[in-house]
Order: sequence, then C-alpha cells, then structure tokens
Amino acid sequence: MEQHIYNTLSENQINQLCQRPKMDFKSVFSTVAPIIDKVETEGDQAVSYYTQKFDGVSPKPLAINPAQEEVSLDPTVKEAIDTAFDNIQQFHKAQLPVPMEVETMPGVRCQRVARAIERVGLYVPGGTAILPSTLMMLGIPAMLAGCSTIVVATPPKADDSVADEILYIAQKVGATTLLKAGGAQAVAAMALGTESVPKVDKIFGPGNQYVTAAKMMLQNSEAQIAIDMPAGPSEVLVIADDTAKPHFVAADLLSQAEHGADSQVVLVATEGFDLDACQSALDDQLGDLPRQQVARKAIDQSYSMVVEHLEEAFSFSNRYAPEHLIVQCREPEQWTDKIVNAGSVFLGHWTPESAGDYASGTNHTLPTYGYARMYSGVSVDSFLKQITIQQITEEGLQKLGPTIEKLAELEELQAHKNAVSIRTNELKNN
Amino acid sequence: MEQHIYNTLSENQINQLCQRPKMDFKSVFSTVAPIIDKVETEGDQAVSYYTQKFDGVSPKPLAINPAQEEVSLDPTVKEAIDTAFDNIQQFHKAQLPVPMEVETMPGVRCQRVARAIERVGLYVPGGTAILPSTLMMLGIPAMLAGCSTIVVATPPKADDSVADEILYIAQKVGATTLLKAGGAQAVAAMALGTESVPKVDKIFGPGNQYVTAAKMMLQNSEAQIAIDMPAGPSEVLVIADDTAKPHFVAADLLSQAEHGADSQVVLVATEGFDLDACQSALDDQLGDLPRQQVARKAIDQSYSMVVEHLEEAFSFSNRYAPEHLIVQCREPEQWTDKIVNAGSVFLGHWTPESAGDYASGTNHTLPTYGYARMYSGVSVDSFLKQITIQQITEEGLQKLGPTIEKLAELEELQAHKNAVSIRTNELKNN
Repeated sequence: MEQHIYNTLSENQINQLCQRPKMDFKSVFSTVAPIIDKVETEGDQAVSYYTQKFDGVSPKPLAINPAQEEVSLDPTVKEAIDTAFDNIQQFHKAQLPVPMEVETMPGVRCQRVARAIERVGLYVPGGTAILPSTLMMLGIPAMLAGCSTIVVATPPKADDSVADEILYIAQKVGATTLLKAGGAQAVAAMALGTESVPKVDKIFGPGNQYVTAAKMMLQNSEAQIAIDMPAGPSEVLVIADDTAKPHFVAADLLSQAEHGADSQVVLVATEGFDLDACQSALDDQLGDLPRQQVARKAIDQSYSMVVEHLEEAFSFSNRYAPEHLIVQCREPEQWTDKIVNAGSVFLGHWTPESAGDYASGTNHTLPTYGYARMYSGVSVDSFLKQITIQQITEEGLQKLGPTIEKLAELEELQAHKNAVSIRTNELKNN
Repeated sequence: MEQHIYNTLSENQINQLCQRPKMDFKSVFSTVAPIIDKVETEGDQAVSYYTQKFDGVSPKPLAINPAQEEVSLDPTVKEAIDTAFDNIQQFHKAQLPVPMEVETMPGVRCQRVARAIERVGLYVPGGTAILPSTLMMLGIPAMLAGCSTIVVATPPKADDSVADEILYIAQKVGATTLLKAGGAQAVAAMALGTESVPKVDKIFGPGNQYVTAAKMMLQNSEAQIAIDMPAGPSEVLVIADDTAKPHFVAADLLSQAEHGADSQVVLVATEGFDLDACQSALDDQLGDLPRQQVARKAIDQSYSMVVEHLEEAFSFSNRYAPEHLIVQCREPEQWTDKIVNAGSVFLGHWTPESAGDYASGTNHTLPTYGYARMYSGVSVDSFLKQITIQQITEEGLQKLGPTIEKLAELEELQAHKNAVSIRTNELKNN
C-alpha cells in the first residue's frame, strides 16, 4: 500500500486522494441504450435474447411466482438466514415513520403521512456467486413498507434455476414475481414492463456498470421510474489508532478488497498504529484467500495515510465520504458526532464490516463513489413516500387568508388570490 | 371542459386519461448539453454569456453574498412573508428526525443518525414574476437541516438586480451565495462549480424544461450531484361531491390553470355536484384574470369525470397520482386512508390549494407528472442523509459471528468470513 503523511499533503493532493477512478458514463450509456430500446419494443423476447447472449441460458418461463416454488435448505443455512433476517427486520421496523401533525396556526392543521410505493423492483446480482444478503437488504424494507408488487430480478444459474436461498427469502418478503434475468435487460424489463414482468415505480439494488447505467438512463426517460441511488465500486475507509489490532485491520481491508479489483480501500492511521505489522498481516492473510488475485489488485491500488490526531482522520474521512467507515480507536463512540459523510459506520475492534454486510441489522445497500455526501443507504424510507395533508377551518382561513392573498399578489397570480378571497368574502357576507 | 363518465370508460381509456402530455426528453437534452459543456469549460464566463443571451442582462458581479445586501420591504409584504415563513418553519421543524437506536441482539447495537447535506443549491425561477414562496419552500428546510453552504440561483431582473423579497428570504435562511442567473446555465454552475459559485452536492427547485433537463442530465454525469425530483407541469385534481360549492371548485381549478397553458387540471365529481354551475363560475371568474389566456388554454385541455361514488373518485385519483389533490366532500378527513398517490392534499371546503402554495406550512415543491407514485415533496429529509452506525461487543460478536460466517461462505466471500473468525478465534484463545 502506498503511504501518505497527511500534513505534508497539499489541498490538491488531498482532493486527488479523495477521487474515485473515473467512470466513463457516456460509453457505458451507449452500450446500454440499444438494450433498453430492444426491451421496450420486444418485451420478453428481448430479455430472453440478452439473457441467452450474456448468461448463456434461456429460462422458460422467464418469470415465476416465488410463492409457488418448492424450496429445500440446509438447516444451518436456513438458521443463518433467519437470524440475519430477524436482525434486519428489527432495525428496519424501527424506521417506520409515525404520522405527524402540527397546527401551524389556530385552524390550520398540517399533517404528514407515509404511503408505500406500490410497485418496486429489486435487483439482486448473481454471476460468480449468489447474493442472498442483497435480497434481504432490499426485500425486508420493501415488505415492511407494504409495497404490494415486489419484483425480484436475478441472473439464473447455468441450469436455468434460481438458488433456493434466493427463493426462500423471496417467499419470506412476499415477492410477487421473480424474473430470471440480470443485467441492463432485467432493469429495463422492470422499468418498462413486459408481458411477464409488471412495470415498477422504483428500482433498487447494486449491480455492475451496465446495471447502474440502465438504472440511471431509465430514471431520465419516459419510463418514469425512480432509483435508489447511483452505484460505483464498493469501498471502505478504516481509521486506526494505537489501540487497533493490525491483523483485525488487515482482515477488514481484505474483506473489502475481495469484492473486486476496483474496490477502494483506504487506511487512515495515527502514528501509534503499527503499519508494518498490518502490512505483513495483510500479506499473510492474502495468501489464503480464494479471491486473492482480485484482492491483491485492489490492495495494490489502495493507500494508507498517517495522521497526527484522530481529528485529522475524521476530517479526511468526511472529505472522502466512504461507503463503509470502520473506526478502531479508543472510545470510538466519542467520535460519532464528527462523522458527517459516510454510508455506514462500524465502531470498535469487534465490529467488522462483514457484520453489517450480513447480519447486524443495518442495510448494506449504501452510497459509494462519494455519493455518501448526499445519499443515504437504503432504508424503509426508500420504499415510502410522504404525503402532506392540510385542513383549514373557516376561522383558520380568515386568519391566514390575508397572508396568502398578499403573497399571491406579489407573485402576480390573481387566481391563487381569488381562491382565498372568494371563500373569505362568503364568510364575511354570512 | 371535456366530460367523462367513469363507469363507461375502458381500462385503456382510464389509462389514457392518466397520461400527461409527452415530454420529449431527448430533444431538450440535446439543447441543454452544450450549455452544460460550456459552463464546465468556461465557468463564470459561460454563465454570463447565456444570461446575456437568454435574459438580456449581464449581472456584475454574477454572484453576491446576500447577507451584505441592503433590503427594504413594504411592511405588509414583510409581514406576509414572516407569517408564511413561521408556518413553514413550524411544520418543517417537526420533521427533524430523532436519532434511533435498536439492540438487535445482546451486544449488537445499531443506530441511525441524520447529517445535513453540506452544500445545496436552490433554484428559484423568475421570468414574468418573482417567486419568493419557492425560496421559502427550499430555504427553510435547508436552514433547519443545517446545510452549511446554501447557494440560491435566480434570474436577475432587467436592471440586473434581485428583488428585495428574494434577498430578504435569502438572508433569513442564511443563504451563503446568490447567483444572479437562471436556466440550465445556473444549474450547471451550481453542479460543477465556477470561479464565483461553489459546487454543491444536491440541487433543488422547480423550473422550466431546460432547468429540469439540466438537473436530470447532471445527476447522471461526473458532476456527482443529486436532485430533488424530476419536474413536469404543475397539476391539480379536485374531488367534489354534492356538498362542494361550484364557485369554490372553479376558483381552485383556475388557480392551477393560471400557472401555464400546460397545467393539468382534473375535476372528479359525484353526480350530486353541479357541474354546470361550476362551468359557468369558471367562465365568470376567468374573465377577470390577468392571466386569462394562459388559464383558458389549460382549462380547454382539461376534463371532468363523473363518478357514482367517492370510492371511485379516490381510486381514479390514485391512478392519476396528482401533485395537488383537493377534496371537497362531506367529512373529507374520513377519506385520507384511501389516498395512496398524491403530492399534497387539501381537505374540505375552506382549504384552497393556494394555502399550501404559500402559507399553511406544507411544502409546495411537489412531485408532478405522475411522479407522486414514488417521490415525496421536498421536506427536511431532502436536505439530510441518514447514516447507520453499529457497535458490537465481544459477546455480541461471539453470538452473531456464526451467522455472518455462514452467509459469507454461502456468498463465497472468504475474507468477509475471516474478518469475523480472526476476531472470534482471539476471543476463544483468551
């Protein structure tokens, strides 16, 4: 890992270190555009065509009702899923908003109520391995919000089947359709609707650059969908002081690095932290990993940064705005007020990132690529919209009317004013 | 107004009536793309160039600090602004989230905390009239959320000045920069940053199709910004039963119609409502409006729908998903549970839409064009992000560890598993 000393860096160098690898949106967009177009005009047939082309399978039928599938799971797998499910459910249930009401003036009652987004699409990547955890992270909040149409899209296995783990969770969250397809074609099918896939209103979930591009392009199109957030490569920033154990830190860096060669891994350490011990633990642990090639590439592009004080560490972290922030220092809970930009935070020596990836209860669908500056991770809120409601009494309108009339006048909107005057005149005349 | 009878319509016809006028995104995008490019490469100079070209003025300086401006307001205007400001502030203050904490398992503590988006850009349209209300609707939640950089962009007046009303509100909300420019160039300046405009993380506010297109394009670009929501023409759906007063309904329809010739105006009435009286009230009131030409065009494209029961009215309204829903019927509060898709709701005979547009306390920046199916109006939440935090004790990790390990195994992510095992092994060995 390249090493930097924080207080020898210029503003420009710090900015540089906060940059993520450039994404060439335009070129990916131009690859994805014809896929979207074909799905729009040909529906299922186009989805099958691309699934055959990219995944080498042609599932028949393309979409199934997961409730009707037989599922058989190893009991230890079932138990692990159930435990994680319960924790995620608990934490997300606590997010359900409470209706709110304020009487802003006598007779002027304003409320806010939440309603589920009715139709949602959940993208669960496949490829080398299955990702049941992603389906829990998207499906549980969708279920708790009360979404009535829950479409799950995931690439089928080579034999055209879907893993029992995925089916089991799809059943638990009440998914209504499971589309056996991945990639831009699956995103387009959910955004536009096809013969066998209902059109949805919002699409969630991580994916490769084609999936992300499809989501981004479709949110700007006549398809009229929203998306959870733009997604880039996964990333972690670890803050370590002299109390941090180098082999724990190394394990955490590697758990991020194994995601992909483009994973972003950053270590910010005070001078008391044993960087050399961490580097050798890293080398030791790397050797045993099945995905060591991938992890090594990511580690080779990563860097560490030595700071004088933890204050500097948090200040740099906020500028970087990491998806995952691991804080392994003395009394880590004392520092949470300093954290401004981060997706999810892991406090203390016994809180590895993988806890949140799977089972602590928090959501692992998080903003990457610096988007933690303005996006939140997926939560129950992501599956709801808030509607405001106001109700004004005759007395309330008499009191508030002149304010409305004055402002409408100022904005030269006479009919806006009339809608009040016509009412308050009637009250005066009675 | 064209008249339809709900239960004579086919599914297809109903769908047709829920359609908004087609927006040709692609052609607008191609107009806006060179503006964004020029602002990216030339900064302030490009903003000035387009402001001269489109608005006929060249403000110098382009951006000011509103706190340093002298403001003089008519006392009645000041009072109206202050009253509206107080109500909006009250309702939005009540939205400030409370930190949340759940112990999902003994020793596994999960929290959620909110942090302000640090740099925000607020677009306040200008043109024919000033829109101080929009600045209140965007600036008050930004202030309450605690955003530290608040950039306001608004087209200057012909003499290169900005209205005192806008300056007054900019000062009240603590805006840090006021950019005297509108259109796509102003949006691009805030998204990308220029010599005199700080780059922001999220851009809010309504605007014409060029402004909306710029927001949409920039959210899909390397600029890395979020936007509040896509915006289309403003719209209202009024539900009226036999208790509704036809001249009140007419006034509400017109207050929407005067926004623009493309405003969407829909009346859904039970058979007991006097449609003829409403139509003639409409004609009467139209004649007196300064913006009658605009309003007449909108009304000419609008329609009414006769339903048998209110149940049908709400069912149609949910399919239409209006920005504004006015409910003028017996005991309107009994129906709120039926409302699933709407931006903001106005209950009863004494609650005109203009109350919410200006001063009841709710936000008037709302999803249009059917986006009320998945977007909320602007609220304090729009200026915050939620960060999750977890902290696990040694005992907690021993308990949760096997679940994480099992799931990591299932997903073939060995380093994720190691990050747990390396810790729990150490606990076992002690």
